[in-house]
Amino acid sequence: MIFGVDYYPEQWTEKDWDEDLDLMQEMGLSSVRLAEFAWALMEPKEGKFDFRFFDRIIKKIESRKMTFILGTPTATFPPWLFEKYPEIVQVSKSGIRRIIGTRRQASFSSPAYRKASERIVSAMAKHYGKHPSLLAWQIDNEPGHEGSDQDYSLLAEKNFRIWLKQKYKTLDSLNKSWGSVFWGIMYSHWNQIPIPGNHLASNFNPAMIQDYFRFQSDELISYIHMQADILKQYSKSPITTNLFPSPFLAVTDMHKLFQKLDFVSWDNYPVWGNQLEPYPHPLVTSTLQYARGLKNKSFTVMEQFSGVQGHDTLGYLPPPGQIGLWLTQAVVQGADQVYFFRYRTARFGQEQLCYGILDHGKHKTKKFFELKKTIQEIREFAEDVAGVPFPAPVAILHDIENVRNYKHQPLSDGLKFEPVPFAKVGYDIEYATWFAASNLLNVNTHSLPIRTDADLSQYKVISLPLYTMFEEEQVERIKAYVRNGGILVLGYRAGIKDKEHWMVEEPVPGVFRELAGLEVHQFEAIGNNKVKLRMGLFPMKGNKFCELLEPKTAKVIATYSDAKKFYKGTPAICANQFGKGKVYYIGTSLSPESFILLYRRILKDAKVPFSFLGRSVERQTRQGKRFDYQITMNHSMKRTWFPFPGLKPFEYRIKKIEKR
Amino acid sequence: MIFGVDYYPEQWTEKDWDEDLDLMQEMGLSSVRLAEFAWALMEPKEGKFDFRFFDRIIKKIESRKMTFILGTPTATFPPWLFEKYPEIVQVSKSGIRRIIGTRRQASFSSPAYRKASERIVSAMAKHYGKHPSLLAWQIDNEPGHEGSDQDYSLLAEKNFRIWLKQKYKTLDSLNKSWGSVFWGIMYSHWNQIPIPGNHLASNFNPAMIQDYFRFQSDELISYIHMQADILKQYSKSPITTNLFPSPFLAVTDMHKLFQKLDFVSWDNYPVWGNQLEPYPHPLVTSTLQYARGLKNKSFTVMEQFSGVQGHDTLGYLPPPGQIGLWLTQAVVQGADQVYFFRYRTARFGQEQLCYGILDHGKHKTKKFFELKKTIQEIREFAEDVAGVPFPAPVAILHDIENVRNYKHQPLSDGLKFEPVPFAKVGYDIEYATWFAASNLLNVNTHSLPIRTDADLSQYKVISLPLYTMFEEEQVERIKAYVRNGGILVLGYRAGIKDKEHWMVEEPVPGVFRELAGLEVHQFEAIGNNKVKLRMGLFPMKGNKFCELLEPKTAKVIATYSDAKKFYKGTPAICANQFGKGKVYYIGTSLSPESFILLYRRILKDAKVPFSFLGRSVERQTRQGKRFDYQITMNHSMKRTWFPFPGLKPFEYRIKKIEKR
Amino acid sequence: MIFGVDYYPEQWTEKDWDEDLDLMQEMGLSSVRLAEFAWALMEPKEGKFDFRFFDRIIKKIESRKMTFILGTPTATFPPWLFEKYPEIVQVSKSGIRRIIGTRRQASFSSPAYRKASERIVSAMAKHYGKHPSLLAWQIDNEPGHEGSDQDYSLLAEKNFRIWLKQKYKTLDSLNKSWGSVFWGIMYSHWNQIPIPGNHLASNFNPAMIQDYFRFQSDELISYIHMQADILKQYSKSPITTNLFPSPFLAVTDMHKLFQKLDFVSWDNYPVWGNQLEPYPHPLVTSTLQYARGLKNKSFTVMEQFSGVQGHDTLGYLPPPGQIGLWLTQAVVQGADQVYFFRYRTARFGQEQLCYGILDHGKHKTKKFFELKKTIQEIREFAEDVAGVPFPAPVAILHDIENVRNYKHQPLSDGLKFEPVPFAKVGYDIEYATWFAASNLLNVNTHSLPIRTDADLSQYKVISLPLYTMFEEEQVERIKAYVRNGGILVLGYRAGIKDKEHWMVEEPVPGVFRELAGLEVHQFEAIGNNKVKLRMGLFPMKGNKFCELLEPKTAKVIATYSDAKKFYKGTPAICANQFGKGKVYYIGTSLSPESFILLYRRILKDAKVPFSFLGRSVERQTRQGKRFDYQITMNHSMKRTWFPFPGLKPFEYRIKKIEKR
Repeated sequence: MIFGVDYYPEQWTEKDWDEDLDLMQEMGLSSVRLAEFAWALMEPKEGKFDFRFFDRIIKKIESRKMTFILGTPTATFPPWLFEKYPEIVQVSKSGIRRIIGTRRQASFSSPAYRKASERIVSAMAKHYGKHPSLLAWQIDNEPGHEGSDQDYSLLAEKNFRIWLKQKYKTLDSLNKSWGSVFWGIMYSHWNQIPIPGNHLASNFNPAMIQDYFRFQSDELISYIHMQADILKQYSKSPITTNLFPSPFLAVTDMHKLFQKLDFVSWDNYPVWGNQLEPYPHPLVTSTLQYARGLKNKSFTVMEQFSGVQGHDTLGYLPPPGQIGLWLTQAVVQGADQVYFFRYRTARFGQEQLCYGILDHGKHKTKKFFELKKTIQEIREFAEDVAGVPFPAPVAILHDIENVRNYKHQPLSDGLKFEPVPFAKVGYDIEYATWFAASNLLNVNTHSLPIRTDADLSQYKVISLPLYTMFEEEQVERIKAYVRNGGILVLGYRAGIKDKEHWMVEEPVPGVFRELAGLEVHQFEAIGNNKVKLRMGLFPMKGNKFCELLEPKTAKVIATYSDAKKFYKGTPAICANQFGKGKVYYIGTSLSPESFILLYRRILKDAKVPFSFLGRSVERQTRQGKRFDYQITMNHSMKRTWFPFPGLKPFEYRIKKIEKR
Repeated sequence: MIFGVDYYPEQWTEKDWDEDLDLMQEMGLSSVRLAEFAWALMEPKEGKFDFRFFDRIIKKIESRKMTFILGTPTATFPPWLFEKYPEIVQVSKSGIRRIIGTRRQASFSSPAYRKASERIVSAMAKHYGKHPSLLAWQIDNEPGHEGSDQDYSLLAEKNFRIWLKQKYKTLDSLNKSWGSVFWGIMYSHWNQIPIPGNHLASNFNPAMIQDYFRFQSDELISYIHMQADILKQYSKSPITTNLFPSPFLAVTDMHKLFQKLDFVSWDNYPVWGNQLEPYPHPLVTSTLQYARGLKNKSFTVMEQFSGVQGHDTLGYLPPPGQIGLWLTQAVVQGADQVYFFRYRTARFGQEQLCYGILDHGKHKTKKFFELKKTIQEIREFAEDVAGVPFPAPVAILHDIENVRNYKHQPLSDGLKFEPVPFAKVGYDIEYATWFAASNLLNVNTHSLPIRTDADLSQYKVISLPLYTMFEEEQVERIKAYVRNGGILVLGYRAGIKDKEHWMVEEPVPGVFRELAGLEVHQFEAIGNNKVKLRMGLFPMKGNKFCELLEPKTAKVIATYSDAKKFYKGTPAICANQFGKGKVYYIGTSLSPESFILLYRRILKDAKVPFSFLGRSVERQTRQGKRFDYQITMNHSMKRTWFPFPGLKPFEYRIKKIEKR
Repeated sequence: MIFGVDYYPEQWTEKDWDEDLDLMQEMGLSSVRLAEFAWALMEPKEGKFDFRFFDRIIKKIESRKMTFILGTPTATFPPWLFEKYPEIVQVSKSGIRRIIGTRRQASFSSPAYRKASERIVSAMAKHYGKHPSLLAWQIDNEPGHEGSDQDYSLLAEKNFRIWLKQKYKTLDSLNKSWGSVFWGIMYSHWNQIPIPGNHLASNFNPAMIQDYFRFQSDELISYIHMQADILKQYSKSPITTNLFPSPFLAVTDMHKLFQKLDFVSWDNYPVWGNQLEPYPHPLVTSTLQYARGLKNKSFTVMEQFSGVQGHDTLGYLPPPGQIGLWLTQAVVQGADQVYFFRYRTARFGQEQLCYGILDHGKHKTKKFFELKKTIQEIREFAEDVAGVPFPAPVAILHDIENVRNYKHQPLSDGLKFEPVPFAKVGYDIEYATWFAASNLLNVNTHSLPIRTDADLSQYKVISLPLYTMFEEEQVERIKAYVRNGGILVLGYRAGIKDKEHWMVEEPVPGVFRELAGLEVHQFEAIGNNKVKLRMGLFPMKGNKFCELLEPKTAKVIATYSDAKKFYKGTPAICANQFGKGKVYYIGTSLSPESFILLYRRILKDAKVPFSFLGRSVERQTRQGKRFDYQITMNHSMKRTWFPFPGLKPFEYRIKKIEKR
């Protein structure tokens, strides 16, 4: 278990350094992340490298037996590079060309950017690759963030055509797959194909947009993998890159991205910018589990919230105890390295409002003492569970193809994607709401990419929301899972669109019809409205989408009960026996409370033990090398009644359990 | 009477075709619309025509004694055309240049587009013009839709200058008419004149914007008329084009557009996209009457709502009976041909969420059975009334010049135009609210362009809202109408702006002062707020705009009664005797309920029989060839109390009456 | 005291002129403003001048012993200028290039525009400079309005680089000052520096944006000063330019702008466009005082609201009495010249909805009679106080550097700048709320730029909100003020950022720590939420921002009392003795009511007499040449209870007091 901090020595004077490292060690930190935005410092002129600056600070780190993670600095680039190759920048969907002066503006399709990246990464790898204190490499910083996962430049357009040619071989094949006959847009030359950028009213072909998102993902991934290849050539240190929240903001296939990297890193900001409240704790847990699930093993929090942060506006101030609790939560959910963002607050620059552990001065803050204390309290537990597999009876599966699909075709206003700085993404919210059900019932829950290598049969219950676009192979795998006794919880609109973006001829739920034992011929997209349901005596609430279920072999679990709807009395949730297993099918998006009600029933059915200790209490179990643990956390400002004795505001309680 | 369907054989395999036509006939359909987006299919290479595809399907249609409408395919164009002539696309107001991949992007000012259109239309006309089963031609598809009524390209700018030169002859004349002396923008060369595109804060001269809208209208109309001329050369089949909702979204003069065409077509979508509720039924009727009124005779619904539709989000699900009722309503309001959009739902492409009569598969849906049943039930009635003039005691007049005027100068936030996909257009809403008054009082009501050929003297009551910009000739015609005994209902801000966009010197209502018998010297634009009024004992509500009426010879009908307004007690509605007739003048925009109260009084005054059967019931009369009819429709989910016996949800009742 | 009117003879025929001037004189007006948009009229071709038009109207003015103010016409320019020099226009932040057809589109960085301006201004100055009836010059019109204070053109970029080179001399110095090492954007050539225009996600360096704003201000000022220099060369008449509301919309340093001009002019619109209510009266007074304070002496209202106005939508209708009251308010607050906007309403052009004293015709309106009566009633008072210094015990200081700072770094959603046509500017609202406290307590209050020449020691109380970025010199001056017995009211986030945009190392309130006797280590930005406070027994409300005060030598005045906040009980307002004076420090933004409560206490402390006569009553004192005056104004539609006898709606009462 490593506790560290993100450190920017270049923002301070050399005489600060020793004092800084002293304070870090006093706090219990043993590692720093360095250099991620320092390209201009290391290559001040094209091809002229100068590592003396970082050599000096690394020497001090080494002499203290501390370690460092080195970031490749390609998330920004030096002005001289843009001056010489002005074509290296991205273009926005609405046609705005990026310029120098900010970050994340490079086009992954630019040969000049790739070449320059190769050069600086090679130089760094050669210089530092074998350094004994080098703990790991972080490639780039938050690749795809801030809209950089989608580039509409001419260079992107050019590569998109090449990518399409590789995929479809012939234009006939492309036209057929896309259904170009629709609106008569049949391409007769590869160069006629545009990039689906700005448009005025009607949109581009959805199959084309889907392909464009796949292409963009491939461009980004091949760029990161190119760096990984170079690093591996010169260094044995493990390689990662740090992901940004929210999980489904980008169109990038993060599962594929990490297949060539050694471990996953995640930047964990339960609150940011002008948010007046932090995310609900199940949303934070779901993102931590997302990070854990990408490689289905321990992960790193590369940037852990330490103080109020924002670029030009700020918000919520965490009460005493909360930042310590967030640290604990991250470790409980599988982090085995946690780096705080950041050590001391920059006095200048775009992040002069991103408060770190220290403020702008050197005064030891309350944050410093709170984090120090938490590290001391949880270290033993953390060391014991670090790297030990995180077992769970429930898993929820996500799928990047459907993330992309719902981004450009959200079906309901309630599922609309809004790329605000901290995005409200339809898929995100729906996914987190599903995740919250078992999380609030205190059942360990995994979040996995659908193409995970994990053995699905280890799970008692698998949740699969928004799986509209399907892949035959996965459908077979899931069928087998149910046939062999698993319980599948399937969401509305499942299994009705193939990988070419064609709707299937079969009624909803398409390829899952037999599994679900029902058909859907009518639906209503209710946007942000709510609809009433009833499960036995329990009232429930649905939103976003209402399918009218017609059970064939399935049994009715809940029905619509809203007097304003003509489909009052129609089934909304059904359950169907299939093989040795069972499929729950939910025709609407439930409110969090209703999800809990439903999952109580499902978990009972699956014989998974659960509990409910209130909306703000989270309880998880972990297995350690020496002990097992039950961790209970109070995520609210109020004392809790349960479990007895009640938890104080933001208290965490780690109960050690002898191994059986 | 013809019932048909919009059919895209190119989206299915040839073996589907016979099955499809079987089903259509089973449902009672005898005609299909074809080919409207199929340019690339018929001219795969420049100048190389290939009609074999449509020949095959038409042969099948013919052999079944069915008929077809043929769309010219110019609403999209083949990618090869854009590749060769990249200048053919429009540019948006904010400077975004359209590209290939969507639809409606061609610039009507582009010579290359015109030339290519001539070629494909000529080829189609030659090939199919004399086909015995060819029922009619539909030129283009929804011309002007999706923002294509306004083009800000360089080609448009060039033609705008030519248009202005033809209109004004000299720059002196243009400068004087526009009042270019204002802000000192006096043009000294034709090439100095810009297109009123993007601007940052202050706007362009309103007279210039008005001219730009007129110019755009002329460009679009001349393009459609060019196609009409070609078709007439080779074919005797009647010609139309299909209009899109909302009526006043575009700046195009649709009345003028149809003068060269044979009949009007309208695309009737009472609900679309992410709407959570359909439009109120009087709004739907007002749009049907708008379509009927353009040529003051029977019209075609070229696209009749059949299933939930949208491009990337969806909404309201019509309860059982409602789509049948909508069909009936269209026929009642004067449609003599109705084509459903669409037969089967496309499995791919931008409209894969536009659900047709069938869903993505071939399963016979509830929609199929409901529409089949309705067609059977109403066919006899429909056949009898088809083509028989639709008589009405009340007419409401609209004017494209004021549509344009209010678009760029809405006066009040309550009248603002919002070009959302399904537009909230100030003029539309105000107009429909006026229309609703007599519609809800179950009086047949016409909606006519002010320059209609219809004889106004046949109407007992004429409503004229938002007639701010006036034309001398029309003013005289209306004066004569009142002088001879007609009742005119005139709205606020009437008659105060001439065709050059100059405000008159006389006080409001300007040229209508004598008619209205009052003056207005003060007004308040209350945006989206409400204001209280009182008509005798009846409380009323006004909104959007409040004129303070100063009656000269007029009598006060209603006064402002709002304690918060200093003009409490000031007249808001007056009536004035003029010649043998009378003028009601309304100084505010009334709420729907208040309009009903007022029109009860006006209709009584005009000796027009009326009734009120509740907000959801619509009753109309029609004369047939053999019988007369009274049709009563319940547009709500609830049973009605009136008329006795009450109507079931979405029930229509067609009462046959012997001719006197 | 002069009452005049803005007159555009070029919008009327010559035969109107005599009638117009008759009416003006009948109303009591003796001066007109002319020519401000008439460049194309005076220079119809490049270098060809023609002043005959204005000669004719001026002759008539002169013959009536009236006077005129002459506007230089550079706020628009003739189309021929744009045709010849298309590069003279500005570019918006999002990259939209301005074109001809509107106004305020010229780039202050364009040499061609400067040269053409020099030529027309020189010609006017030579022709009219010594005219005996010429009262004053108005340079340009509302410079910086409508976004023209920020230009993102290539010419601006070029000049920005030159400006930076002059400021920083070397790139090392620039890189160090900006902290370019942040995100590694270290410039190695001047031409690499971009203009901080459009960006996609992350912003530009705040120090760079601050410099860009300073640069833009310098560009605009040097342009206006260039005109002033020319005018002075040929004319002895005093020079001004007219400022637009809101005070802090532009980034221009208006204090610096006026140092070379002779007097300040202000365009006073208490309501405009689609506003449904006028600004609260303290906001209007604060803007009048802003205008007065820029040179700390009498000022001119160059455009005084006379009728409902807007470009394409309208709003509020002032009840009888209100426009007369607004006129009186302007005089009371220090205006010694008032020109109404405008004489008669233009029948054409972009401002055909900007209603003047007359409407579109020549009918004498209620506005005409109301203003005529008010002028008669207040003339004696106005003549007596005109030019006599306006004494005040309280002053509030504003600072353009912080206006700029909060524009790009608002800290809290509650302080966000929104550049709507009539802007909601965070700084404006916060500043006006502070100002309102003493204004509503009927204490004469000055509003001064912090770099004012005024002697601060004359004030009993000085308010200083949002003084985050500090200047050493001003800090010393304020320290001295307090040390010598002054009372300072200091707002949250004071004194923590130096002029290079670096945050200081010291805790908040940074350089004011000793003065305030407290420290702040924690804060919360609560956006548009509210928080409860308590001052003794009085409940108060805070918003926007909450600092947690840690008093060292200060005493607690109020504490947070909100049960939802963990910092309940923490001090929110403190007071600290410093030297002979005292510092009140407010850690939050108070609601207007709470500000009044606090200022009652402060004014009592400062021994400044105050009163409270209700939210709508404003009372001020003025000293005249012969008498002193107490003026009481009722800004509401309701009769007041106080003072006795109550004031009628919109009544003003001017009480003459014998000089002691």
